[in-house]
Amino acid sequence: MITKEDFKEVCERSLKLIEEAGIQLTSEEKQKITSADFGLDQIKKEGVQIITLFDTNRMAAKILVLLPYQTEPEHWHPPVGDDPGKEEVIRGVWGDLTFYVPGEDTLEKGFLVEGKEAYYTMRNEVVIGPGDQLILPPGTKHWFQAGARGAVMYSFSTKVTDLLDQFTDPGVVRDTVIEGY
Amino acid sequence: MITKEDFKEVCERSLKLIEEAGIQLTSEEKQKITSADFGLDQIKKEGVQIITLFDTNRMAAKILVLLPYQTEPEHWHPPVGDDPGKEEVIRGVWGDLTFYVPGEDTLEKGFLVEGKEAYYTMRNEVVIGPGDQLILPPGTKHWFQAGARGAVMYSFSTKVTDLLDQFTDPGVVRDTVIEGY
Repeated sequence: MITKEDFKEVCERSLKLIEEAGIQLTSEEKQKITSADFGLDQIKKEGVQIITLFDTNRMAAKILVLLPYQTEPEHWHPPVGDDPGKEEVIRGVWGDLTFYVPGEDTLEKGFLVEGKEAYYTMRNEVVIGPGDQLILPPGTKHWFQAGARGAVMYSFSTKVTDLLDQFTDPGVVRDTVIEGY
Repeated sequence: MITKEDFKEVCERSLKLIEEAGIQLTSEEKQKITSADFGLDQIKKEGVQIITLFDTNRMAAKILVLLPYQTEPEHWHPPVGDDPGKEEVIRGVWGDLTFYVPGEDTLEKGFLVEGKEAYYTMRNEVVIGPGDQLILPPGTKHWFQAGARGAVMYSFSTKVTDLLDQFTDPGVVRDTVIEGY
């Protein structure tokens, strides 16, 4: 659960980073910002802020924002019926961003979330600067983290099936609950 | 055919507009810019500049640039085999941009390309400002045009099959030929 105060704070700070990144949003889009704590109850450590730009039956685009040192937990996009699973392309826009994907352990800039080391198993570090892109085929385990400035990125994908994503941490509940809602 | 001089000029001017729009590109992406004249031999009137950001077997993202008063000819994305045809989402970023799609004739800001009136049959005008989006389902006839400042937009789509696009103007040759190449 996220408290109303934390939800408001992380969303407002994220909108400022999006502005800093030079991305123009409509006022309707700004209203649509949300935060996901994955049921882990420490939004400023494990979580992400999201604005869905569009979401059709075939594809989607989102803006993802990490606040300074915030980490999105390790997960992957499984097959869904006839679909091989969501394919995702990340495009860095602004800030300090590292992704962790399959491959040799090169973790250097980032850190494992304290007490959750077992749930961050991918250790191949990819630094994503402005304009850098990372293609994540279906099934690719990944997590990502912001450095000191936070980070703003685009996520482009085939059809969104977020509630079916699978997480390494068994404590994850994908649907966000905000206090009092 | 585009002359080498025109190709260089329209690409360089387009890169300046992308910079003006606040989009960060890698140096590799800047090198990849291209211009399409659709074989109509008047690139500054009918044509578009394109940077493909990514292009997988399932989806693609491009930056499209129109120079001042440049027009992309009317076309649509037909079914391809088992695929219902390319779905495209346009997101306005910068400049003066109008799209023309099926619906009543509301053409007011834009103009029909001189001598080509018969090949611009869609007259329902949609003004696309920064952050405005337009979803084009497969088969939707559309053309678009920049005003005085030119225009920069994203095009997100399902799998790209550009060489199969169909155009109202029978004079169109989709593959671009640059003088001397």
